[in-house]
Amino acid sequence: MKKIAILGAGPSGLAQLRAFEAARLAGIENLPEVVCYEKQNDIGGMWNYTWRTGLDRNGEPVHGSMYRYLWSNGPKECLEFADYSFEEHFGRPIPSYPPREVLKDYIMGRINKQDIRKYIRFECPVRWVTFDDETQMFTVTVMNHKTGEQEVNEFDYVIVATGHFSTPNMPYFEGLEEYSGRVLHAHDFRDALEFKDSEVLLIGSSYSAEDIGTQCYKYGAKSVTISYRTKALGYNWPDGIAEMPLVTHFEGDVAHFIDGTSKRFDAVIMCTGYLFHFPFLPDELRLQTHNCLYPANLYKGVFWQPNPKLVYLGMQDQYFTFNMFDAQAWYVRDEILDRIKIPALAARQEDEKNWLAKYDEVTNVEGSIDYQAAYIRDLTNATDYPEFAVEKQADILKEWQKDKQQDIMCFREKAYRSTLTNTLAPELPVPWLDVLDDSLEYFLELSATHTIEKSKAS
Amino acid sequence: MKKIAILGAGPSGLAQLRAFEAARLAGIENLPEVVCYEKQNDIGGMWNYTWRTGLDRNGEPVHGSMYRYLWSNGPKECLEFADYSFEEHFGRPIPSYPPREVLKDYIMGRINKQDIRKYIRFECPVRWVTFDDETQMFTVTVMNHKTGEQEVNEFDYVIVATGHFSTPNMPYFEGLEEYSGRVLHAHDFRDALEFKDSEVLLIGSSYSAEDIGTQCYKYGAKSVTISYRTKALGYNWPDGIAEMPLVTHFEGDVAHFIDGTSKRFDAVIMCTGYLFHFPFLPDELRLQTHNCLYPANLYKGVFWQPNPKLVYLGMQDQYFTFNMFDAQAWYVRDEILDRIKIPALAARQEDEKNWLAKYDEVTNVEGSIDYQAAYIRDLTNATDYPEFAVEKQADILKEWQKDKQQDIMCFREKAYRSTLTNTLAPELPVPWLDVLDDSLEYFLELSATHTIEKSKAS
Repeated sequence: MKKIAILGAGPSGLAQLRAFEAARLAGIENLPEVVCYEKQNDIGGMWNYTWRTGLDRNGEPVHGSMYRYLWSNGPKECLEFADYSFEEHFGRPIPSYPPREVLKDYIMGRINKQDIRKYIRFECPVRWVTFDDETQMFTVTVMNHKTGEQEVNEFDYVIVATGHFSTPNMPYFEGLEEYSGRVLHAHDFRDALEFKDSEVLLIGSSYSAEDIGTQCYKYGAKSVTISYRTKALGYNWPDGIAEMPLVTHFEGDVAHFIDGTSKRFDAVIMCTGYLFHFPFLPDELRLQTHNCLYPANLYKGVFWQPNPKLVYLGMQDQYFTFNMFDAQAWYVRDEILDRIKIPALAARQEDEKNWLAKYDEVTNVEGSIDYQAAYIRDLTNATDYPEFAVEKQADILKEWQKDKQQDIMCFREKAYRSTLTNTLAPELPVPWLDVLDDSLEYFLELSATHTIEKSKAS
Repeated sequence: MKKIAILGAGPSGLAQLRAFEAARLAGIENLPEVVCYEKQNDIGGMWNYTWRTGLDRNGEPVHGSMYRYLWSNGPKECLEFADYSFEEHFGRPIPSYPPREVLKDYIMGRINKQDIRKYIRFECPVRWVTFDDETQMFTVTVMNHKTGEQEVNEFDYVIVATGHFSTPNMPYFEGLEEYSGRVLHAHDFRDALEFKDSEVLLIGSSYSAEDIGTQCYKYGAKSVTISYRTKALGYNWPDGIAEMPLVTHFEGDVAHFIDGTSKRFDAVIMCTGYLFHFPFLPDELRLQTHNCLYPANLYKGVFWQPNPKLVYLGMQDQYFTFNMFDAQAWYVRDEILDRIKIPALAARQEDEKNWLAKYDEVTNVEGSIDYQAAYIRDLTNATDYPEFAVEKQADILKEWQKDKQQDIMCFREKAYRSTLTNTLAPELPVPWLDVLDDSLEYFLELSATHTIEKSKAS
């Protein structure tokens, strides 16, 4: 019997567990033995919110970059699982942009329908992985913090699902060692209320900056300044949020910008992205890439070209998320089950070359969305993963881009139609900026009241 | 030729490098080949102050727990190197409790007299160490972040000098996930000014709590509350610092204490100690201990009992610091050079048993200080490490204990006599609480002015 190690029980690792479980429920026999090692003490990866920052209670780097008051920054209709709609989970339609707890409830609801926790070993960070050319087996050493002892086991396959939004990329700016305010990376941002009445500087101009910036504004920061290197986000910001070019240096608690202006700040939040970091892998097994839609050296975006018994899940930059991980996990499962035969190295490289060539032709966001949709379609075509309308979801993602451009503070009030149920989501009944309570209870009550009022009115 | 790997270029690792360099300068031939791997980009360990918290620019856990405005919390006369006095370094006597920059200048001054940087590989955290029973060699894999590639080498000895005040021990209290203020460990405390005008709660009652508490008070915290588990620190605190029994839970931004009282806080700083954390070592090589004066399984406090070619430096709780690391490093060097023969396992264990039995008899701080002095004396007796008056320094440490009890806010104004030069240090000419500038320049000017005034007056 084949033995499989899955590293990480976040959305990608869970997708892999569910893929095998789906095969088991379909009556397929001689399934491999699967073990999933997870550093945290629960499933969910990023979605397992923690108040901790830096290192966790076992001294391991904290995985989570999640913050309180986070709301989905893309329409839920684009991350709906093909076999489990939001409507099925909540018993009725809900608005398109749910807050953290609501999204997590949906993700977990589907997980909990299957008994997959039994495959997961919690508080077991991976220490070191080797591959023996002779035996063709991996040796995986994990630290079991529950027992205080390490465990060493051999596997036929190793599936790396440890994510790539956990290890902060933290640049240096002159004068930071003398800066008297607080300096942190977006990875360690937890609660916007910590920055109430503060003058906050965000360095960076991608998702972290726009989302943490609007959060801080919403929860009472005195001012939010976003500093960009190459290009301003350019949204129609309200008073209280401003964009500035790059910081050159700090003097005391004052940041100086490249245009010669300067401003005092209470805190600096680096929204400067993440590193691909696999401290448990030797070089010959270690993916080295930046955040992009087609990391090099991965056949079909998942199989390590030099040794396809090593698999990486979810290492792409992500327009699509949960259902892309599913598409990958189903494909990987079928390869392990010998239902899909992957070709020899030359053909694998040729396939990768074609995808990279297509990627070179992508020039804008719309093209990027279509590119990732085509990648997912290529994977789902080869497996029995339930049909989902990936191209329609791509269209929703393009609309989402426009909505954000139109009004960055209000795009979460828009509503979309589920590609699964064809139901149009109810609109968020109050402005997003006014909803300070992000709890599941409040959100469901809010949307329920609205639905009732609507039905009364009609 | 023997090959030695030293892991870490902090005070302990540097002591080992200097021990070998001293042998080289003494004309000893056939010295081993020494390589020192350091995670940071400079020497000094803790003393290499960084503004970073959490993970460093390479994604590795930040080593430093050092903060701005830290002053030595013990008399410098007890950490003076036996072969290099403070007076020699600064050209004149200086007060007994120097701030961080001054102490670092002294430590580095001695290092820079020798050309030992050439042995150190910076930005090279250790990934994994194994020992081969057949070849009797260690294999050490390090990540060279400067090249982006790993390096694998074999060694006869591995000397672990990675410290044990780097990996925070961070307990959980109910309600922390909903607490809206800032929560951090002492490890991530950098600048007391971040807590100006704040109500700060410190949990813990050891060195971190007393020192960070007084720092925050000194730099304008609105209030400092220290919460203890078993016993209050019991110092004669000024208004603005108070001690409370243990926190039971948090509700919103309010902490509840076990005596039924409660108080709102802007920030919580966990002064709850550190973990021994060696993620690069397999179980059979990994020291497992808590912070104490004689960690089990180490012969002479340094040689790993099951395999004495593995050495741990500085793993003791520390009354003595730099000169204890020296004493250890000289002893280890002489064992490697076959000048000291260590006995077989049974005798090594017998020796450890005797030390642990003596440790059991220690009942108070004075006894602890004498115990560590005796341990150091045992080491220095066997080597050519320059004679230093460890018992006299022990007496100074006992005085220091009394001074702190007498006035925790003023003990840094006391002056001691160097056991090397016999010079009595000048007193700090102004109250410690009034010295907000902790720079080297300011401190030296302050003590120079004082010396001049004194000589005028006499």
